[in-house]
Amino acid sequence: MNIAILFGGSSYEHEISIVSAITLKKVLKKSNLSFIFCDSNREFYLIDSTNMKSNYFADGSYRKAKKLILKKGAFCTEGMLGLKEQSLGTVLNLIHGRDGEDGKVASLLEFNDIAYISPRIDASVLSYNKLYTKLYAESLGVKVVPYKLLNSNESRDIELEYPVIIKPVRLGSSIGVSIVKSADELDYALDVAFEFDTQVLIEPFIEGVLEYNQAGCKTADFELSIVEEPNKEEFLDFEKKYLDFSRDGKVMDAEISAELKSDIQEAFKKVYGTIFEGSIIRCDFFVVDGEVLLNEINPIPGSMANYLFEDFEGMVKRLSTKLPKEALIKIDYSYINSIQSAKGGKV
Amino acid sequence: MNIAILFGGSSYEHEISIVSAITLKKVLKKSNLSFIFCDSNREFYLIDSTNMKSNYFADGSYRKAKKLILKKGAFCTEGMLGLKEQSLGTVLNLIHGRDGEDGKVASLLEFNDIAYISPRIDASVLSYNKLYTKLYAESLGVKVVPYKLLNSNESRDIELEYPVIIKPVRLGSSIGVSIVKSADELDYALDVAFEFDTQVLIEPFIEGVLEYNQAGCKTADFELSIVEEPNKEEFLDFEKKYLDFSRDGKVMDAEISAELKSDIQEAFKKVYGTIFEGSIIRCDFFVVDGEVLLNEINPIPGSMANYLFEDFEGMVKRLSTKLPKEALIKIDYSYINSIQSAKGGKV
Repeated sequence: MNIAILFGGSSYEHEISIVSAITLKKVLKKSNLSFIFCDSNREFYLIDSTNMKSNYFADGSYRKAKKLILKKGAFCTEGMLGLKEQSLGTVLNLIHGRDGEDGKVASLLEFNDIAYISPRIDASVLSYNKLYTKLYAESLGVKVVPYKLLNSNESRDIELEYPVIIKPVRLGSSIGVSIVKSADELDYALDVAFEFDTQVLIEPFIEGVLEYNQAGCKTADFELSIVEEPNKEEFLDFEKKYLDFSRDGKVMDAEISAELKSDIQEAFKKVYGTIFEGSIIRCDFFVVDGEVLLNEINPIPGSMANYLFEDFEGMVKRLSTKLPKEALIKIDYSYINSIQSAKGGKV
Repeated sequence: MNIAILFGGSSYEHEISIVSAITLKKVLKKSNLSFIFCDSNREFYLIDSTNMKSNYFADGSYRKAKKLILKKGAFCTEGMLGLKEQSLGTVLNLIHGRDGEDGKVASLLEFNDIAYISPRIDASVLSYNKLYTKLYAESLGVKVVPYKLLNSNESRDIELEYPVIIKPVRLGSSIGVSIVKSADELDYALDVAFEFDTQVLIEPFIEGVLEYNQAGCKTADFELSIVEEPNKEEFLDFEKKYLDFSRDGKVMDAEISAELKSDIQEAFKKVYGTIFEGSIIRCDFFVVDGEVLLNEINPIPGSMANYLFEDFEGMVKRLSTKLPKEALIKIDYSYINSIQSAKGGKV
């Protein structure tokens, strides 16, 4: 299987994407891998596998690698005789946050007719924006954590039951997110969140809430991971986060009832629906009073949540043969020809 | 003002986009225009202004024009000495339907840092998909025409009050849309709609409903068009549609009360919000029992609805100086450097 791992991006999660890519190099052992780095300036570079070390990017050495230009059908190198197409195989979109999760990379690859594993445009936009995720989930009958939406130009004089959690509507990870324990902390937390977005969500912060992650994709049928009960920490510090994005060891199935497991899996399948076809995603659920609530969709989870699957590499291979294809639109100019003939060729 | 009109695309509305572009050539008289044609195969061509006639595209002559390659910062021609950047000015996205309205063109231009007039990615996805439009509008407190959603794999055995109108969830224009007057016509209409999409909306068809269009954009403040009462015809035939996309004559303000006009304009402003910044859109409203309901958002209306504005060309110029800019994300590799120092340079 030829897989090109696309990572980096103009994103707050640029560095963590590098960590994810290095991890997948270790995980996808049987595949023929290429590495496409998107630098902070959105230039593409073809990275030699032996250079897949984080320092190579941090110290700017990557700039010595070959630049790639994306055009119809392929990534190309620019040579003496014009652009030269590279056969890199199916692209695995591993850009976390902006560019990768907001629909841009999906658009670039779709437009240029390159096979890719990633949420498509709609799925990206709906999962990158936490408000749209809620509207989408509710329309499917999947319950969500209750929320208030606040725009940066609206009054902050609002009644809340503390503690609450403040989240910028966009951005992945925990960037700009704060837990607010009382009214006098609210203003500062909103200032922080509004630095990253013009809209924030305010949700009840549920101390010690039961939290479960379910990852999966659809190949011939759904392939679901184990259900994981993630480690509780109020926030990820940088080392914890590093561990999170570089995980490749297997984890244990959560000890939950068959009924709860089934509820979580049904909610996952509803969310995945048809719009997430072509992608491997992770949904994070809360369980409150026995009810499964969608917390968020991780459209490109750290190191693709490989550690939650029995046969991650086999699944990637099966998925790469089941990628959704855009409808072919045939343009025969019959409309213009009719108009021309009606107007005597004058338009 | 330098404006590059981008038109064509891999879209059912490819031909109508050519008509739109020819019309704007006539309308934007004082501007320095370039024309970028995206053919059905998604190759870009730089079209000489004198060749802006529909036959030039219908008979394939455009293939003799210079090809363009989009890369970071500019559209380029490929020459003996590599890629050569073209200074074409602000791109006006005039691709109707797929590619132009679904977020792809916005992504391409945003990613490559090219100034453009168009709905951005989120705004495109929310307006291209009629279901998401409804969820979005309802979340803003804007009323919509009531609807049922039907998936292609669901039972068609549904209770409906006829007549109804069947619409594929995506696609612009009237493609795949049918009015169904009784239960025995339903199956055929659904077959037609499901040829274009896996989801359809079923709405009550309201005979003789009052319909009003409002176009506008936000420059220093909102610039709103007159309110138009569109011509009623059950459906657009091809000549009617041609007239619609090639309009450049002014129309009359609808004869409605100041109160209704204000309700329509307030609904427009709510829908436009911040997410449509950078674009000129048209919202189509129904008025039922004095209530304003959003019917649909036209994110790239035919010939940009130029005929609804007093000073269309001036507005385009003002808008081109008020385009939203993505936040700059500075990547300093402090995270990787911290991890490296914590791990003794071993990652």
